Amino acid sequence: MRNIQFYQEAFVAYLHDYKFDKEPASLYSPITYILELGGKRLRPVLTLMTAEIFECDYKKALNAALSIEVFHNFSLIHDDIMDNAPLRRGKETVHEKWDLNTGILSGDAMLILAYQLFENYDAEVFQKLAQLFSKTALEVCEGQQYDIDYATNDEVTIAEYLKMIELKTAVLVGAAMQMGAIVAGASIDQQHKIYEFGKNLGIAFQLQDDYLDAFGDPKTFGKQVGGDIIENKKTILYLKALELSSGDHKMELQHLYSITPSDSKDKIETAKHIFIATGAAEATQHEIKAFSDKAFRTLDSLDVDPNRKEILKQFGEQLMNRVV
Amino acid sequence: MRNIQFYQEAFVAYLHDYKFDKEPASLYSPITYILELGGKRLRPVLTLMTAEIFECDYKKALNAALSIEVFHNFSLIHDDIMDNAPLRRGKETVHEKWDLNTGILSGDAMLILAYQLFENYDAEVFQKLAQLFSKTALEVCEGQQYDIDYATNDEVTIAEYLKMIELKTAVLVGAAMQMGAIVAGASIDQQHKIYEFGKNLGIAFQLQDDYLDAFGDPKTFGKQVGGDIIENKKTILYLKALELSSGDHKMELQHLYSITPSDSKDKIETAKHIFIATGAAEATQHEIKAFSDKAFRTLDSLDVDPNRKEILKQFGEQLMNRVV
Repeated sequence: MRNIQFYQEAFVAYLHDYKFDKEPASLYSPITYILELGGKRLRPVLTLMTAEIFECDYKKALNAALSIEVFHNFSLIHDDIMDNAPLRRGKETVHEKWDLNTGILSGDAMLILAYQLFENYDAEVFQKLAQLFSKTALEVCEGQQYDIDYATNDEVTIAEYLKMIELKTAVLVGAAMQMGAIVAGASIDQQHKIYEFGKNLGIAFQLQDDYLDAFGDPKTFGKQVGGDIIENKKTILYLKALELSSGDHKMELQHLYSITPSDSKDKIETAKHIFIATGAAEATQHEIKAFSDKAFRTLDSLDVDPNRKEILKQFGEQLMNRVV
Repeated sequence: MRNIQFYQEAFVAYLHDYKFDKEPASLYSPITYILELGGKRLRPVLTLMTAEIFECDYKKALNAALSIEVFHNFSLIHDDIMDNAPLRRGKETVHEKWDLNTGILSGDAMLILAYQLFENYDAEVFQKLAQLFSKTALEVCEGQQYDIDYATNDEVTIAEYLKMIELKTAVLVGAAMQMGAIVAGASIDQQHKIYEFGKNLGIAFQLQDDYLDAFGDPKTFGKQVGGDIIENKKTILYLKALELSSGDHKMELQHLYSITPSDSKDKIETAKHIFIATGAAEATQHEIKAFSDKAFRTLDSLDVDPNRKEILKQFGEQLMNRVV
C-alpha cells in the first residue's frame, strides 16, 4: 500500500513541474515564491488519497489537488496582510518581501489560477469541482471575517467559535477530500461522507492546535508555545475557561487577556494554570476527541474496501498525534 | 427595437432583486454598497445586447451579465486600495468607509461570487463561461500589474502601453460580449468576432478617455480635466508627445512630468500646448479612430440580421461620442 510520503512526494513533484511563471514577473513570481515555501501539503495529499480510496488513479486528481493548494496559499497571502504578519514558514511574507499591492494582486491571480486548474476536467466534473470550490472559498472568507470580528467582540460563544474554525479551516479539508471523490466519480452519498470526515478531522485538528499552543512540546509544536496567550487570542481554551470559571478566575483571565506585558512568561504560566484549574484544558481535550471520534465514525460508515480506508485512518491518527 | 436604456433598466432591476446580503454583514454589506454606487453598467448591458443579437432572450444572460458587473466592482475595490483612492463615483471607497482588511476580503468574496453566478447555467455553458472568465480575469490582473510597473518605468513604449490598456480594460469588454454570445449558443467564429469588436471598442474608449482627460469638456467629462497631467500619468498623449518631439519639447515635457506644483493650472496648459504642438493630440485621435474603425469592421463582418447589429453600432457610436 502506498504511504502518505508517497503522495506528498508525488504532489510536490507535480507542483515543481507546473509552470506558474508568466509575464509580468512582478505578478507571477510571488506565486511561485509562496508555493515553494514548503509546508506539509496536507490538503492536496488528502485529495490524492481520497481519489485512490474510490479506486481512481491519484494522477487524475493532481490538478484538483493543486487547485486546493493554490487556493490555500492565496488565503495565506491575504490573511498575512490582514494579520500584519512579517513571517510565513520562517520566511518573509509576500507583502513584506514585495509590498501590499503585490500581496493583494498576486493573491487575486492565485484565486483565479485555482479555478483554471479545473479546466483539465470534462464539463460535468469541472462544474462539480468549481461549485464545491466556490461554496468552500466563500465559507473560508466568512470564517476569516468572523475571526476578525471576534477579536474585538467580548461576547463570543463556544458555538460561534466552533463555527468560525469550521468555516476558516475545516471546510477546506472536507472539500479537498470531496474533490478527490468527485474526480473518482464517487456517489453523492459517499462524497458527503468523506467531506464530513475531512471537516470534522479539520475541526479536531484546529482545536488541537489551540490546545498545543498552550500545552504542546516546544520541540515538536513548530510554533512558539504560548503564542495565542501572548496575543490575547480567544481560543477554545480561553472560552471554555470563561464558561467554566467563577468569580476570581474569570476576572483574572479577563484581565490577563487585556494586557501585553513585555515579559510574557508569567502571563503564560498564569493562563495555563487557569486553563487547568477551571477544567478548560480537559474540556478542550474532550472536544477534540468528540470531533475526531465523529470523523472516524463517518469513515467507518464509508462503503469502500476496508483496506483502502486504512491509509486515511492512519493519516487521521498521525495528524492527531502530530507526526505527519 | 429595444434601446440601450431598456437593457440598463432591466439589468439594474435584476441587480437590485439579487440578494448578496448574507452573514457576516461585515463581509457582505460592502458588496451591496459598491454594487449600488451606480455607474452606467456598460459591460453587463453589452452582455445582454449581445445575447439578443444572437437571437436569445436577454433574460437568459442576466446571470452572466451580473457576473461581469460583480467582477468589475471587485477589481474597483482592490484597485482603489492599490491606488490609495479615497473616492469612487463621488462616494467613499470601500477601504475608506470600512478598512483595508474589509476591502481585501469583500473583494475576494466578490471574485468568488462572480464565478458562482455561472452555476445558473448547464455544465457545458458553465465551463465555457468560467473558462473565458478565468482567462479574462487573469489578464485584468496582468494589466493592473503592468499599470503599476509602468508608473516607475521611464522606458514604456506605445506598444506596451496599448497592451496594458488592452489587458486592464478592453478584454473585459470583449469577454462581456462573448459571454452573451456563449449563452446564446453562437458559433466559436461569431464568438471571437464579437469579442474582437468589444476589445477594440474598449481600447478606443480607453484612449479616448486619455484624450478627453486633457481636451474634454469639463461639463460632460465626468472627471477633473487634466487629472492625468496633475498625476504625471504617462497616457497615450504623453507617450506620443515624447515619440514625436525633439529637444526642447521633450525636455520640457519630461520636466513637467517630474513636478507636482500646488497650482496645476500652468502645468496643464503647458502640457496641452506640447500635446498639440508635437502632433500628439492629433496622433491620438488617429489611434482612437483606428481602433474604433477596426471594431466596426468586425461588427460588419458578423453574420447576423443587419437590423440586430444596429443597436450595437448605435451603442458603439454613442460610447465614442460619450453620450451613453
